[in-house]
Amino acid sequence: MKDKLKIVKIGGNIIDNKDSLASVLVDFATLKGNKILVHGGGKFATNLSRKLDIPTQMVDGRRITSSENLEVVIMVYAGLISKKICAGLQANKCNAIGLSGADGNCIQAVLREKTPINYGWVGDISKVNTDTIQLFLDNNITPVFSAISHDGNGQLLNTNADTVAAEIAIAMSNKFNTELIYCFEKNGVLKDRNDPSSVIKSMNPSYYQELKTAGIIAEGMIPKIDNCFYALENNVSKVSIGGVSILANATQPFTTLIK
Amino acid sequence: MKDKLKIVKIGGNIIDNKDSLASVLVDFATLKGNKILVHGGGKFATNLSRKLDIPTQMVDGRRITSSENLEVVIMVYAGLISKKICAGLQANKCNAIGLSGADGNCIQAVLREKTPINYGWVGDISKVNTDTIQLFLDNNITPVFSAISHDGNGQLLNTNADTVAAEIAIAMSNKFNTELIYCFEKNGVLKDRNDPSSVIKSMNPSYYQELKTAGIIAEGMIPKIDNCFYALENNVSKVSIGGVSILANATQPFTTLIK
Repeated sequence: MKDKLKIVKIGGNIIDNKDSLASVLVDFATLKGNKILVHGGGKFATNLSRKLDIPTQMVDGRRITSSENLEVVIMVYAGLISKKICAGLQANKCNAIGLSGADGNCIQAVLREKTPINYGWVGDISKVNTDTIQLFLDNNITPVFSAISHDGNGQLLNTNADTVAAEIAIAMSNKFNTELIYCFEKNGVLKDRNDPSSVIKSMNPSYYQELKTAGIIAEGMIPKIDNCFYALENNVSKVSIGGVSILANATQPFTTLIK
Repeated sequence: MKDKLKIVKIGGNIIDNKDSLASVLVDFATLKGNKILVHGGGKFATNLSRKLDIPTQMVDGRRITSSENLEVVIMVYAGLISKKICAGLQANKCNAIGLSGADGNCIQAVLREKTPINYGWVGDISKVNTDTIQLFLDNNITPVFSAISHDGNGQLLNTNADTVAAEIAIAMSNKFNTELIYCFEKNGVLKDRNDPSSVIKSMNPSYYQELKTAGIIAEGMIPKIDNCFYALENNVSKVSIGGVSILANATQPFTTLIK
């Protein structure tokens, strides 16, 4: 039987809140067994871009990664946030290592096609280096991934953090029984956006379809949940979405996705 | 007999020059055997601080690391420069991994005493994690260190890159026959600051003393060379200082330090 491996993704809103981040790092450090952390960006990159007068370009409501934006996200995600998280985990006796996709050639990507929309320096993951990730895990080194990948030819690329987590979980499922946990500012997928207690405890694809049709699940939650089902369909054993308590015995309800 | 290990430190002026950096990365990637890269910062951090209106505090001609300065150097050194170097080395088939001291707990430091001068968030190295560094080397993963350390309690610290290189070389000398190579914008230690061809080919401590007394070696070169002799006195086999050609069969003369 394969060993278990938990891949935990923490969202930008958790990173922005000092207390939430500290609490999640303690809980993550305490998690037993093989684990990987993937972190998003938070508002720091947006604020830094603003201070530097770097425009945020949007096309069809989606952010474009210009050369200047790319430098900012590398600095903030793979630099400041990655190293702060690592230092915080080390203080909690978790031997973390902050990685971009270029480090140890862990995550290779290809520049996204420029049509129909040119997203700029955005990469779609082509290969996860499972041997190197396993080497870290086998030596009690806990990988902490920022959502920066590389193309193998010297170009760093911006990649969606939810996707990074899902692709790592899928790739590592060859070696491990993988579980994917999305930890964000809400307690899970909500039936009523205005009622934080309306957490949907479990959701299968047909129920998801129903909730989308009814407009209950909309906007940013759609790609997030699509990602979850994509992982379940590709050998990831378990996927859940929840709040900061999800790592610590889940004192609050959370959402489990079912194939 | 111990295996050989080369620790190469590249200075900020090389990082600032795109062509020099590209050429050094090719040469470093081509180096046979165990190797570690340590990189300085360059002007990007200073320029970024200026754009963000973060003042550079100086005391007795030495830079102070305020909280805001620390964030900038973490972003630039451990983020942008580290990841660009890694992606560049990956493109040259060198499986690099960009590390701060917090990553894998590789470099622990203690906050420098606040008297007589309060340098701010500056760390003096207390421990190099040689086992983890050896794990990388044994698996053909090439460590690339930025000059950011941590105190083990969650605090990141700014550390001098020349010192980081020397301390790694000293610590790793328990396991390897270590050689330290400082690669910077000049061809070596010069007898005449205005004549780039006046490279001193070899220097022992008494000759160094003589050149200091004569005012030929002064200012920033003094801590750099002190570092070299400190390494030689602490089990590092060989220390040299040279220009960009030093890694590639040394077509130009360079300076060798002799115990």
